[in-house]
Formats: sequence, C-alpha cells, structure tokens
Amino acid sequence: MIIKKVIAQQAKLAKVAARKLAGLSTEQKNSALLEMADALEKNQSEIISANSEDVAAAKKKGTRANMIDRLTLTPERISAMAEGLRQTAELKDPIGEEDFHTERPNGLKIRRVRVPFGVVGIIYEARPNVTVDAAALCLKSGNACVLRGGSEAIRTNQKLVEILNAAATSVGIPEHAIEFVAITDRDAVLSMCRLRKLIDVIIPRGGAGLITRVVEHATVPVIETGTGVCHIYVDKAANFEIALPVVLTAKISRPSVCNAMETLLVHKDIAEDFLPKISKLMIENKVELRGDEVSRKICPEMKAATEEDWSTEYNDLILSVKVVENLDAAIDHINKYNTEHSEAIITDDKVAAKKFQTLVDAAAVYVNTSTRFTDGFEFGFGAEIGISTQKLHARGPMGLEALTTMKYLIDGNGQTR
Amino acid sequence: MIIKKVIAQQAKLAKVAARKLAGLSTEQKNSALLEMADALEKNQSEIISANSEDVAAAKKKGTRANMIDRLTLTPERISAMAEGLRQTAELKDPIGEEDFHTERPNGLKIRRVRVPFGVVGIIYEARPNVTVDAAALCLKSGNACVLRGGSEAIRTNQKLVEILNAAATSVGIPEHAIEFVAITDRDAVLSMCRLRKLIDVIIPRGGAGLITRVVEHATVPVIETGTGVCHIYVDKAANFEIALPVVLTAKISRPSVCNAMETLLVHKDIAEDFLPKISKLMIENKVELRGDEVSRKICPEMKAATEEDWSTEYNDLILSVKVVENLDAAIDHINKYNTEHSEAIITDDKVAAKKFQTLVDAAAVYVNTSTRFTDGFEFGFGAEIGISTQKLHARGPMGLEALTTMKYLIDGNGQTR
Repeated sequence: MIIKKVIAQQAKLAKVAARKLAGLSTEQKNSALLEMADALEKNQSEIISANSEDVAAAKKKGTRANMIDRLTLTPERISAMAEGLRQTAELKDPIGEEDFHTERPNGLKIRRVRVPFGVVGIIYEARPNVTVDAAALCLKSGNACVLRGGSEAIRTNQKLVEILNAAATSVGIPEHAIEFVAITDRDAVLSMCRLRKLIDVIIPRGGAGLITRVVEHATVPVIETGTGVCHIYVDKAANFEIALPVVLTAKISRPSVCNAMETLLVHKDIAEDFLPKISKLMIENKVELRGDEVSRKICPEMKAATEEDWSTEYNDLILSVKVVENLDAAIDHINKYNTEHSEAIITDDKVAAKKFQTLVDAAAVYVNTSTRFTDGFEFGFGAEIGISTQKLHARGPMGLEALTTMKYLIDGNGQTR
Repeated sequence: MIIKKVIAQQAKLAKVAARKLAGLSTEQKNSALLEMADALEKNQSEIISANSEDVAAAKKKGTRANMIDRLTLTPERISAMAEGLRQTAELKDPIGEEDFHTERPNGLKIRRVRVPFGVVGIIYEARPNVTVDAAALCLKSGNACVLRGGSEAIRTNQKLVEILNAAATSVGIPEHAIEFVAITDRDAVLSMCRLRKLIDVIIPRGGAGLITRVVEHATVPVIETGTGVCHIYVDKAANFEIALPVVLTAKISRPSVCNAMETLLVHKDIAEDFLPKISKLMIENKVELRGDEVSRKICPEMKAATEEDWSTEYNDLILSVKVVENLDAAIDHINKYNTEHSEAIITDDKVAAKKFQTLVDAAAVYVNTSTRFTDGFEFGFGAEIGISTQKLHARGPMGLEALTTMKYLIDGNGQTR
C-alpha cells in the first residue's frame, strides 16, 4: 500500500505538470530538449560514475556479459543520447494539428485537434538510453511521464532523470514533467498499472513476461509493445536470389530483437530445392534449426521442432522451420501462432502477395523483403517509443503521434438540444 | 469454466468468419445490410412475439415502467431498426482507405491502410435496438461481432440475431459473423473480457458499474464508453440569453443520457444575478438543486451538496451547483471530478473560451452551446457505436472508423537489414 501511495503521489505531481505542458509552444519544448542534450554531455562524468556503480553491482550478481554491455555507458553512448534529444527537437510537433472539421446545419462548428495524453507511464527493462528517449518523446508530445526502469540500471536512471529535469526546469518546463519511480520492488509495476485517472496510458517495453503481467493487472489503458514471433514464408513462386539473403539476414543480423524472424515456412513444391540451401547458410552462421517432419526428411541435420517452438520468440540464433502445403496453410499457421508483429512473403506471384497481405493479421506485412524493417527510423518516423502489437490506438512503430489523442472543440452561439 | 469454453467457442467461430469478412467488397456488405433490413420487417410478428415474452417476464419481476417501455418493441420501432440498417448501408466504407504512404531511400514502398479489427465484443444493457445497430456497424466495418445483451431482452435479442444472420448468410456473408452470447450469468461478461487473441476489442455500453467491472477484469483491450459527469461553466462574461436556455435544456431535455449536464459552475461575479434566474427555471421544471455553501446563501431553496455530489452522474432531474472564484477554479473543478466526456463554457470572452478549451480534459469541449450535442448523429457521423470516454484509440462519438485499425503493407525487391 505504501508503494502505491508513493507512486500515486508521483503521478499526481506529473498530472499537474501535464496540464501546463499541454499549453507549451513547440519552441519552448524544443529549447528544453536542446538544453537537456547539453546537460547530458556537461554532466558526463557524473553519469558515468553512477553507471559504474550499477555495473559493479551487476557484475557482483553474476549478470551475463551481454547484459553488462547493454548496461554500460561510455562517453560515446552519452553523446548518442544527447544526439537523440537534438533529433527529437527536429521532429514535427503533432500537438494542435487539426485533422477534421465540419460545420453542422445548426451552425455548430466542430473541430478535432491533436492533444497530449496527459501522463504517460512507461515500464521498461532495457538499456538506460530508454530513459532519455522516452522522456524526450513524451516532452515533445506535451506529455508528462512516469518512468519505471529496470532495477539493474537504477542509479544510472535516477542520475539521468535528475539531470534532465534540472535542465528542463531551467528553461521553464514545469517541475515533475519527468517522474522516475525509484522503487525496485516488483509491486511498483502493478501499482502503476492501476492508477486510473492519474496515468492516462501505460506502455510496457520489455519481454513477454513483463507485458503479460501488465496486461493482466492494468486498469489504465495499455499499449502493448514488442514481442515478435515473426515469420517469413517462401512461396513456390519465390525468387531464391531474394529469398536466401532475406531469410538469412532476418535471422542472423540481430537475433535478439523483436522483428527478427523466428519461424521459416516453405512451400512444399520448392522445399527440396530451397531447404538444403538455406540450411547450409544457417548452419555456417551457427543457427540451430528445428524442423517439422517434412523438413527433417529433406534436411536430417535439423533437430525436431515441438509444438511449443511454433509460438516461441527465441531472440537467439535458433530457427523453427516448417514445410506447408500451400499459401493458405502458411497464412493459417501465421495467424495461429504469430504475435501480430511483422510477417513476410517471398514470391514473384502478385496474386499470392496480395492475398498474403490481406489475410495475414499483423502490424506490418512485407513482400520480398525482411521483417527486420519494422522500426520507427526505417519507416522514416525519426524516433520510436516502441512497436505496438495491438490493434487499439497504434499499430507497428510508434512515433510522436502515438503519444497523442484527439479532442473535439465545438463553437456555438446558443444552440440547445 | 463451462461458460468460458462456450463463449471461447463462439469467439473462435467469429474469428474464422472475421477472416472472410475482411475480404468482402463494400457492395457485398451493403447488400447484406439491405437484406437484413427487409428481413426484420418481414419477420415483424415473430420479433414482437419473442419480445412480448421478455416484456411479460419483466413485468412479472416488477421492472420499472420506463424500463418496460425501453424493452418493448412495436412495428414502428422495428421499422426504425430496419431504417438504421439501410442508413448504415449508405455510410462510406472505411476499409481499405490509405492514410499514409512513403518510399524510403532503400526503395521500400510503405503504405498504411485501414483494416477491420477482426472480432469486436460488445457488452450492453440497453434496448434491443443496440443489437441491430451494433451488428450493422460491425458488418459494415468488416468485423465479426460477439454480442452480449442484457438478460431482460434475451428472447428478443436472440430472435433478432437469428433473423439477421439468416438474411446475411443468404447473400454470402460467412456464418457466425454475428455471434450472440445467450448466457445470462454475470460471469459471461468476465469470460468475454479475457478472451485474448479471440476477441480483438471489447466495447462495454452501459452504466458505470458494468464499465468498471469490464475495465477491472479485461485483458482484451477495452474502449470505455458512456459515463458522463458533464459540467457547464457560466463565466462572468456570459450572455444570459445564451446561458439560461443552454443550461436549462442541458439538464431537462433528456436527463437520463450521458451527455446531460450534472453540475453547474457559476463565476462568483455573476452568481447573485444568474443563480436566482436559473434556479427558478429549474424548479419550475421539477429539477432538484443541490448547491454549495455560496450558492445556498444566494438561493436558500437549494439542498446542500455533499462531496459525493460532485462526482455523481445522476441521470435524473437533479443538478449540483457550485460558485467558483474564477475560470481557473472552474477548470480545476472539472478536471478533478469529470469523466472526460463533455464540458461547456458560456462566455463572450474569447480568451477565456480558448483557455477553457485548451485546459479542460474531455472528449468534447463546447463554447456557448450545450454538452447535449456529443452524439454521432449530431456530429454528422451518421451512426454511433458509443461515446468513448478514454483517450486511447477513439475519443467522443465513435463512428465506423473507430471500429477499424491500420496495417502497414511494405513492398520490397530483396532489401535486407
């Protein structure tokens, strides 16, 4: 109960700040972002000192080397954060945009304009740069934020927020625009998710476990992000010169990310030709292959896939492989096991491509290219607060616009009803 | 558990239907809507016979007369339902609209197109016409639906769905496009709300109790609708010729609806002039007034308002009244107690009006007119599935577009990442 009270108090302060943020001009917000960028660079040594405590604690706990690497800040990484702030200042401010207006027969003038949510809650596990990115995108979109980062980066995150807030308030941003929840207890997440009327939307960024926990307990509206069981289907009309490099890189270029391929589906008519080729490439690149029965008849070097494999996000150099009867079977498999993130077909058959794009249920559906392109920068949005895997409000890479809502403004002259 | 299984099975069937619905042409959907309209009129006597059983059961239970009236169908009311179906056929089909496209430097062509949600769950308590309206709007937007109406109208609703489905399938709409949950047990609502991956969005329509229960238990994304603690603020610069009729009608024209005014706020400088005038009009129209201390000094005929009154949606001829120090105090009161539905200011001061519209947090903010205009037909949307009081996805009156989501379609020629 104490945890809930503490976080509720932070959210209340953020709500007060949010009312003021909603009225700030683009110039005010941009000058704060630039000030924040400078402050990060000016206070580099303080940040690195806080960070080294986090790193030391993580090493003591026996944290894996790749996690230590993610956690560790260097002058270059701090400059990259500052650069991110400066780039956010360059982005178009969505607030105040009018996307609809009408005048009704009774004379009412109705406009619909874009406004901030108010208070955005972000729960994340990842690297400390998320703290800076999230604060920047929320500020630019006129929102206050309540941030809850992973416990392993707590000292770094606290220091970052302290510096960002000091810089922001020095140029007129209201206090408490960026609130950081310093409670590492897991209950903090659950408490945050239930602060209706204080937090307007919750965005969890992290693994499936975190996201499920948030969705299960939240009463505040949630935008789900991130988990990706992505498929590439190699159709019978596929051009292998496209299929082989696309499939290979979609697995190996960065296996830990949500838009990496987890399952390869291959049309039965080309399986005997295609599978040995891709299997060889994958094995050369240290990918473990888990095939269904038909795949393993063609490529006995594959391990046997179990039912669980079809719905697993490996985030690793592992690939499940299945031979399908036809396009419909591929679509059915995807719609049964996917997380509605990103899916691709490799084919020269335009009818098949169109059917695939129409019937596959996912945020992004690709033809003759890789699922790895689902990303705010790749889509040209300039920044990204996460990739929505739900259908409500935002789908796919979320830029600034996803952090806003609409409001109807109606002007009359005494109309009654 | 059995309840959950039964509803899950219905949702699964609806999901299969949804995949087919997503590919139907506007013409196919419209011809089904017209067929459904004719079928309602053709089967009028069957509908009225089922309805009279519901009415008899309700009377036996001692249901209030106004509820009996809401439940009762007549040939005129059935014709009105049929007319609603025909009007839905006239509406513009949002599916397939492209709202964004870009070609990236690497040659990727990215389009964003409007697609159906898939399966929409609607939980309602109201009149049987909601069954027809909801089915029509879902079909037109390419969605399957799972409907769960109030137990008092169960025979009527079942008969309506039977007729609608028969008509729809006769012209090629897939079976199970309209699923009706015939389980009156309250657990049915909870089970529906937790069918992740089977139901894509849940829209509760009804009182605050139903909506809170859904939000509290849902794991499926929810669009909250309906509860309205709406305020009108009469500013010191108000024109009384506008203020008096707007305030009066906002309370009395239809007190049971969500966009009716529940609290009147009056600037202290005009309170001594305005309050006695509006009080007289309200009392003549049988409105019970509950004032704060200052209001009651001016109008001793008012009862004393308690803290609870400020957040109560009366849905009745009751009005709470408060005198405020200034515009800021009015805005603060509204943002503290409102349900983010509809709010109004009466003023000739354009600066005050703009400040009110900017800072009040609500779906619709009015100047010099009534909160009662928050309505899909009044806004010119032609139909309405409900009024969203949340910020995620849809805000205010929801037309067909609110029943859709977007999908990114990306065409490449072998790009890798």
